[in-house]
Amino acid sequence: MEAAAEARAAAGLTRRLRPRPAREGVLDLAGNDYLGMSRHPVVVRAAADAAAHWGAGATGSRLVSGSTSLHAQLEEELADFYGTEAALVFSSGYAANIAMVASLGGAGTVLACDRYNHASLIDATRLAKAAGGHVRLFGHRDTEEAAARLSEATLPHRLVISDTVFSVDGDIADVAGLARVCRAHGAALLIDDAHGLGVIGEAGNGSLRSAGLANAGDVVTSVTLSKALGAQGGAILGPRRVIDHMVQTARTFIFDTGLAPAAVGGALAALRLLRAEPERAQRVRAIARHLSASLNAAGLRASTPDAAVVSVLASSPDAAVTWAQRCCTAGVRVGCFRPPSVPDGRARLRLTARADLTDADVERALEIVVEHS
Amino acid sequence: MEAAAEARAAAGLTRRLRPRPAREGVLDLAGNDYLGMSRHPVVVRAAADAAAHWGAGATGSRLVSGSTSLHAQLEEELADFYGTEAALVFSSGYAANIAMVASLGGAGTVLACDRYNHASLIDATRLAKAAGGHVRLFGHRDTEEAAARLSEATLPHRLVISDTVFSVDGDIADVAGLARVCRAHGAALLIDDAHGLGVIGEAGNGSLRSAGLANAGDVVTSVTLSKALGAQGGAILGPRRVIDHMVQTARTFIFDTGLAPAAVGGALAALRLLRAEPERAQRVRAIARHLSASLNAAGLRASTPDAAVVSVLASSPDAAVTWAQRCCTAGVRVGCFRPPSVPDGRARLRLTARADLTDADVERALEIVVEHS
Ligand SMILES: Cc1ncc(COP(=O)(O)O)c(C=O)c1O
Ligand SMILES: Cc1ncc(COP(=O)(O)O)c(C=O)c1O
Repeated sequence: MEAAAEARAAAGLTRRLRPRPAREGVLDLAGNDYLGMSRHPVVVRAAADAAAHWGAGATGSRLVSGSTSLHAQLEEELADFYGTEAALVFSSGYAANIAMVASLGGAGTVLACDRYNHASLIDATRLAKAAGGHVRLFGHRDTEEAAARLSEATLPHRLVISDTVFSVDGDIADVAGLARVCRAHGAALLIDDAHGLGVIGEAGNGSLRSAGLANAGDVVTSVTLSKALGAQGGAILGPRRVIDHMVQTARTFIFDTGLAPAAVGGALAALRLLRAEPERAQRVRAIARHLSASLNAAGLRASTPDAAVVSVLASSPDAAVTWAQRCCTAGVRVGCFRPPSVPDGRARLRLTARADLTDADVERALEIVVEHS
Repeated sequence: MEAAAEARAAAGLTRRLRPRPAREGVLDLAGNDYLGMSRHPVVVRAAADAAAHWGAGATGSRLVSGSTSLHAQLEEELADFYGTEAALVFSSGYAANIAMVASLGGAGTVLACDRYNHASLIDATRLAKAAGGHVRLFGHRDTEEAAARLSEATLPHRLVISDTVFSVDGDIADVAGLARVCRAHGAALLIDDAHGLGVIGEAGNGSLRSAGLANAGDVVTSVTLSKALGAQGGAILGPRRVIDHMVQTARTFIFDTGLAPAAVGGALAALRLLRAEPERAQRVRAIARHLSASLNAAGLRASTPDAAVVSVLASSPDAAVTWAQRCCTAGVRVGCFRPPSVPDGRARLRLTARADLTDADVERALEIVVEHS
């Protein structure tokens, strides 16, 4: 432990915890509050009301004392929004991903995984492997290689596992293509739509409807309630028999305290706001495209966003850190990703669009990021 | 999946999700809200205030946008309460346990684990094993066997991992004894005090002070904010260098959205209430002892509680289910644990004491549980 700590310190890679300011002054382009729901008065009020009515905590596992009618309501409306038969709420997106993969992918299963999948999917895959599953990686967003991994598979059960929107760069998987490949090889598709919900698709319905896969019998989706819905928690969406199977077997469901009512109430209110105002999804995507175009026009190397995330390459990990710190001092918080958090080892800033930014906010953010590059 | 579902259905083991009622009428002895904090008006108000001030969600990882001064305050007060140098808050106790074990127990490490450890510790151990750790089980609460596992160990790093209060039966590990064994063998002790915080020790300070281990350099403790503190979330408590190491390496910290402000605020208010009214810890233990003594006096086979949990054996899984359902219909919710959730395969009811039950509540609960046995 000590040797590793020294190596990290020497490489300037020690991470520090800095509390963020409560609200005023600083423009936040670091978080994943894509639709500005976390501070929406209706969402905040719904969170408070849920705590008042149901208590500050769920008090136990969903199977014992932790289920309320609010959980059931959120599950129903999430499933309806995605066009799946059923949904199941977890205490986090991380827990949902562990459940999804570990309870569908044990012994006798080949798990074909995008090389850049989120850490929670990777941990989930490790648990599936510990239970006898065979893990095979394919190249990032390489649908053909996913097909190759499946055709090599000798075990009876087959899964393809991928993020829809990859969290660091915001690039997207070819979900429809992966689904076709899965069908051709008798595999099920497990996708993590953490950064797709509320952002992808005309009305922000996420990647399932966008790919024409609503109600598909062989696709299971996880989402998080902690990004576009501004709260906390996660969910799995899919065919009812899969959801029932999770209730019976998923360890992060059975042996975990249910999601706190405040988070359930907040997420439900945010979901309803999004349905009432679907233009929020369009606005966040438009802001992301504008950020990217302007940064590239200023000579920086910004990604072309498919969702709400724009990443901008830095010349070195040190340069990225300094850049982000200068932006923060000047009034704009941005994310800073360095090795080993980025799979390709290239340091960058990560900027997230938010539907509730004004045009003036966006221009100010652009000025500051460019000026301090 | 289908075959397993049929087998479960045939054995009457299919679990169902039933929302609990909002409050009136039913007496809840099923949850883990040991001190009645989840509905305490001060706790509920603090949760609402935190959401209003900081937003309904943390909006990102603790390392990016998810840390607030409220998180830092809770960490400081939790560490002070336990007598450790530092603390780190996670989105759940499950996530905290995965972090604690997986980031301290990889390659080159022997992990000696109580056979009945909680599912979250077991999953964590599986991840450590996947990273090259060697897992060795010892008999439930068998400190001597823990010592034997350590003396057989050939790898340089050694951990002993145990619940303090085991969640199903509420029996406790010999934490001081395990710590002695660890010292004799150069091992670190990792304990999960999920059911100890707020319950164990005169003032509810948990199992660390009770065992004379406050500030021990070789003990790391996890707790949950979702039981005695009535909210949601988890924390790791220990020496500062260990906490710093978690910040740098723990995947369920780095790659997970921070705990929602409402849960942080609720837990902090509950912690302060507990410090102001330490007699809550005494009352919950006294109620548990009274429940146990009365059930045994009525001819049932109840465990002798060291903490807040009392388990009562049933003659069969079916009998346990019927018994719990009848209690519920009569107005008392109790937990029902059947194989495979119970390690020894013996079905039982699980009753939890709550400090805010009146004497009349307790007598009514006893009458109903005995009458329907
Ligand atoms: C792609 C992806 N999946 C899952 C998660 C985990 O969700 P949560 O933070 O709600 O636990 C995250 C981020 O935190 C993510 O970026
Ligand atoms: C012993 C023990 N450890 C850890 C946990 C997980 O904590 P949480 O529910 O806060 O995730 C639980 C119960 O849920 C538990 O009983």
